[in-house]
Amino acid sequence: MRVEGIPASPGYAEGPLFDLDQPPASYKAKASTEEEQAALMSAIGKAVGRLAALIETADGDAAGILEFHIAMLEDDALSGPALVAIGSGQPADAAWRTALDSEIAGYEASDQDYFRARAADLRDIRDQVLRALNEEGEVAAPPGAILYGEDIAPTRFLETDWSEGGGIALKSGSTASHVAMLARSRGVPMVVGLGAPAAPTMGDALLDAEHGAIIFSPSPAETEAFRQSASAFADRLGAAKTFLTAPAVTKAGTAVRVQVNIAYPSDVEGIDVETCDGVGLMRTEFLFGKTLPDEETQYHAYCKVLEWAGGKPVTIRTVDAGGDKPVPGFTVEETNPFLGLRGIRLSLARLDIFRVQIRALLRAAIHGNLRVMFPMIATPDEYAQAAALFAEERAALAARGVTHKLPPLGIMVEVPSVALAPEDFADVAFFSIGSNDLTQYVMAAARDNAAVAHLNSVRQPAVLRLVAAVAAFGLEKGIPVSLCGDAGGDPATIPALLEAGLRDLSVAPAQLAMAKAAIADAAV
Amino acid sequence: MRVEGIPASPGYAEGPLFDLDQPPASYKAKASTEEEQAALMSAIGKAVGRLAALIETADGDAAGILEFHIAMLEDDALSGPALVAIGSGQPADAAWRTALDSEIAGYEASDQDYFRARAADLRDIRDQVLRALNEEGEVAAPPGAILYGEDIAPTRFLETDWSEGGGIALKSGSTASHVAMLARSRGVPMVVGLGAPAAPTMGDALLDAEHGAIIFSPSPAETEAFRQSASAFADRLGAAKTFLTAPAVTKAGTAVRVQVNIAYPSDVEGIDVETCDGVGLMRTEFLFGKTLPDEETQYHAYCKVLEWAGGKPVTIRTVDAGGDKPVPGFTVEETNPFLGLRGIRLSLARLDIFRVQIRALLRAAIHGNLRVMFPMIATPDEYAQAAALFAEERAALAARGVTHKLPPLGIMVEVPSVALAPEDFADVAFFSIGSNDLTQYVMAAARDNAAVAHLNSVRQPAVLRLVAAVAAFGLEKGIPVSLCGDAGGDPATIPALLEAGLRDLSVAPAQLAMAKAAIADAAV
Repeated sequence: MRVEGIPASPGYAEGPLFDLDQPPASYKAKASTEEEQAALMSAIGKAVGRLAALIETADGDAAGILEFHIAMLEDDALSGPALVAIGSGQPADAAWRTALDSEIAGYEASDQDYFRARAADLRDIRDQVLRALNEEGEVAAPPGAILYGEDIAPTRFLETDWSEGGGIALKSGSTASHVAMLARSRGVPMVVGLGAPAAPTMGDALLDAEHGAIIFSPSPAETEAFRQSASAFADRLGAAKTFLTAPAVTKAGTAVRVQVNIAYPSDVEGIDVETCDGVGLMRTEFLFGKTLPDEETQYHAYCKVLEWAGGKPVTIRTVDAGGDKPVPGFTVEETNPFLGLRGIRLSLARLDIFRVQIRALLRAAIHGNLRVMFPMIATPDEYAQAAALFAEERAALAARGVTHKLPPLGIMVEVPSVALAPEDFADVAFFSIGSNDLTQYVMAAARDNAAVAHLNSVRQPAVLRLVAAVAAFGLEKGIPVSLCGDAGGDPATIPALLEAGLRDLSVAPAQLAMAKAAIADAAV
Repeated sequence: MRVEGIPASPGYAEGPLFDLDQPPASYKAKASTEEEQAALMSAIGKAVGRLAALIETADGDAAGILEFHIAMLEDDALSGPALVAIGSGQPADAAWRTALDSEIAGYEASDQDYFRARAADLRDIRDQVLRALNEEGEVAAPPGAILYGEDIAPTRFLETDWSEGGGIALKSGSTASHVAMLARSRGVPMVVGLGAPAAPTMGDALLDAEHGAIIFSPSPAETEAFRQSASAFADRLGAAKTFLTAPAVTKAGTAVRVQVNIAYPSDVEGIDVETCDGVGLMRTEFLFGKTLPDEETQYHAYCKVLEWAGGKPVTIRTVDAGGDKPVPGFTVEETNPFLGLRGIRLSLARLDIFRVQIRALLRAAIHGNLRVMFPMIATPDEYAQAAALFAEERAALAARGVTHKLPPLGIMVEVPSVALAPEDFADVAFFSIGSNDLTQYVMAAARDNAAVAHLNSVRQPAVLRLVAAVAAFGLEKGIPVSLCGDAGGDPATIPALLEAGLRDLSVAPAQLAMAKAAIADAAV
C-alpha cells in the first residue's frame, strides 16, 4: 500500500516501522508530596543533563535547538504550575503533563505555522521529563528503523542511531520544522503530510523521501523497484561528493556560480569556504528571534560571516519578517500573511527597527565583500525609499565620523510585479530570484499547503518563463541575476534553471555537492 | 484633522458626527423572574415585528439580511440560555446580553473575515432586543448625520433616514460587510478602517468616501475644497444616469459591452435588462450558504437568471468557495486561504459536490444563452479535467433521456500563471479576467488587508501589462476576453482598461451608469 506525502529531506530507507505514538511506560507514584516534587525537579535536571550531553556532539542548528530546550526547562514558568499541582495532591507525572499540555494547546491553536511548529518542541520537553521520571525510560528505535507517527520530537531525532540508515515518516509534520531542518543537514530521509492512512504501524516498509511516499507491506516487485531507485540515488550522492571542491561547470563547459544560503552566522562554521562561491543569501530574520537585536549584535553577526568569506561576496538580506516568519513585537496577525505586511513593507513601516539594521550593515561593509538586498520589493518606489534610507544613515555615520561603506544594493525578485517589469528596476545593483515566493504567487498556491502542493512547482511553465525573462533582462543590461530559492539546490530542477539562462545559484549547504553534480551533468 | 481609511461605498457627506458607540439607555428591572422572562420574550417579539416591518420596504439584499436576523431571533438557541439565566436571578437585559456576547465572542475569534463579519449581525440582534427592552429606545441619528463608531449594525443602517444625505465612518468595519453591500446599493457614502484616531466624536465632519477619508473639525479651506470635490462627484453621478439606457460607446466611437455581476438570483429583480449586455458573472458560491444546495435548487436559480436575460448571455461561474468565502462542510481552514484549496481546486477535490452543479448547469443551458466558467484555473490540466466532467455528466444525462445542452466553457484569468501563458489555454471558449485576485497575486498584497492596500491596484503597471497581454492574445486568436473584477466598474480605472485593449466589462449593477459614463468619456 503506497501513501503519498511531501518530501522533507531526500533519500531512501527500507526497514521495520517503529511506532512513535506508542504510549510511554507508566509512572510509579511516590510516598509523599515532597518526594513527588523532588522527583519532578530531579527528572528535569536529568533531562537538562541529557540535553547538555547531546549538545557536545551536535552541530550549529541542532545545538541551537537544544539550548532553546534547556532554557525552557530551566524556566520556572513551566515547573511552577506543576509543583503547585503536586502540592495539591497530584503525582509528579500527571502534574507535569497537565502543565505542559496546557502550554502546548496554546501553541497548537495558533494559525501560524511557526508557532504550531514550536508545539513539537514543547511536546519534546514534556516527554523528556516524563521519560526521566520513569526508570524504564522510553523504548529506543532499533537502528535502521523507519520512525512512523503523528510527529517527532527533536531530541528523539538526536538520540536515534542513524548510522545504519532509517528514516522518518510523519502523518502530519511540516517541512519547516526543526526536525526537517536537522534531517536535511544530516541526510536522514523524511516524508511529512502522509495524512491518516489505514495502514499497519508495524512490519516492514519502504520510504521514498526523494518523491515523497511510503509503501507499507511492500510486494517483492515494489521492493525491487524501490531498491533500484535507492541505489541510483546513492550513486548520485556518492558521485556528487567528488564535485564539491571544484568550481561548477556544465558538460558543455559553461561556468556556474554556486553560493550558499545561511540563516545563522554559526552556519558558516560547518562549511569549507573553498567549496562555494560565497554567500548568496544570508537571512537576518532569525537574528530577530525572541527579541529585536541591537546594532552591535547585528554588526558582529554580519562581520563574522564576512570574515569567514574572505574576499568572496556575502549577500545579506534585510529582515524578511512576516509571512511564515513572525517576530514578536514586530510582525502583525493577518488572515493571509503571505500576502501581507512582510519583508520590505514591514521594514518601511517600522523605520525605528529598519534604521538599526541599516547602520549595522553600513558599518560591517568595510569587513568584506558585502552586498545587501531587499525582500518582497513590489514597486520601484519601495526600492527608492530603502535606498534613500541607506543614503541618510550613511550621511549620519559620516557626520559622526564612524567608519562605514555603502554596499551595492539589490532586490529579491519574488513578487510577480517585479519579474513582469524588470525594466522598472534598471537602477538596482543586482537581482536575486526568490523562487519559493515567486512560485507561490504565480501559481496562487501557498508553499506550505499540502492540498495545493501539486501546483507549487518552479518547473511550471509560467514560472520558468518569468525566470527566463529576468535572466535575459539582466544579461542585456549587465545586471547580475542569481536565484536563491530551494529550487536552486534541487537536482531535478537545475537543468531547467540553466536552460532559463541562470548562471548563478545559491543553495542550502547540504545541497552543494548534489547541485554541483547536477550542473556537471547539464547540457547547457 | 484628516484621517485616511478605505472607501467602502463612494460619495461625499458633510454633517454632524453621530456617535454610534454611546451606551444605550439603562434597563429598569422587573418585580419577578416571570416578569423578567416575559419582558425578554416580548422584547424579542417586538424586535421581530420591527424587522418584519423593515422587510416591507427593503430590497433583495436587505430583505435577505433581515430574514436571516428574524430566523436567528426565533431560534431557541439564543433565547434558551438567557431564559435559564433569568430563572437563576439575572435581570432580562443582563441575561440576554451575556448569552449573546458569548456567541459573538466565538465569531469574533475566527480568523475568517466572513465569520467575523457575522459578529456584526449578532451584535445587531443583541442591540435590537436590548432596545426593545428599554422603553426609551435608542437615540435615532438625525437626518444628514455622519454615523461614526467602531462598527454599525445592519438594522441601524436600515432604520436611519438617509433622505437628507449623511454617511458612515467606521474605525474598524470591512468593505465585505452586509452594511457595506447595502451602502453601495443605496448610494450611502461609507469609509471603513479609520483606525483609532484621537479625534472628537461630536461636531461637524467631512466624509470623502470617494478617496476614503474623514476630516474632523474642518477648516474653511478644507470645507471649500471638499464641496468642490463633492459637487464634481454629484455632477458625474447625475450625468451618468443619462447613459444608462444606451449602449456604451467611447468618445472615439468604440463600442464596449457592459454586463453585470450578480451574486443572488434575486439580484436581477432590480435591474432593467435593457440597461446591460447580459450577466458577465453570476457567482454561485452564495447559493452554497448554510447548506449545500441540491440539483433542483441550483437548476431553478440558474433558470431564473437565464429567463430574465432573454437571449442575452449569462455567464455562470462554478462554485468559487474558499479564500474569503468559506462554506461549512465544503471549504477547509488554511493559514493562507487566498493561496489555498479554493475555486476549481476545491471542486475537483470534491467531485460529489461539483457533479451536482454540472448537472444543474447542463439542464439549465436549454433555457437561454448560458456560458459557464471555472474560477482559479492555474494549469491547462485543471481545465481539461473540468471539461471532461461536463462531457461525462452530459453523456449520463443523455443516457437517461434528460433534456440538456453543453454550454461554451471558459475560464477566469486570475491566477498569474494563466495570464503569463494564455497560449496554453487556446482551447477555451472565452477568458474572463478576475482583476481582484489577479492583482493581489501579482502584487502579493491581499485585497482585504488595509496595511498593503497601497500596493493592491489594478493600475499598477505590471497588472495592466498582463491584462493587455491577455486582451491581445484573445484578439489574435478570436477568443473573447472580458473583465469582471471591481476595477471594471471603477470610473478612474476604466480608461486604463480600455487602453489595455478590453472591450467587454462586467460591473456591479449599482456601477452601471457611472461605468457607461466613464466609457463615453474615454478617448480610445
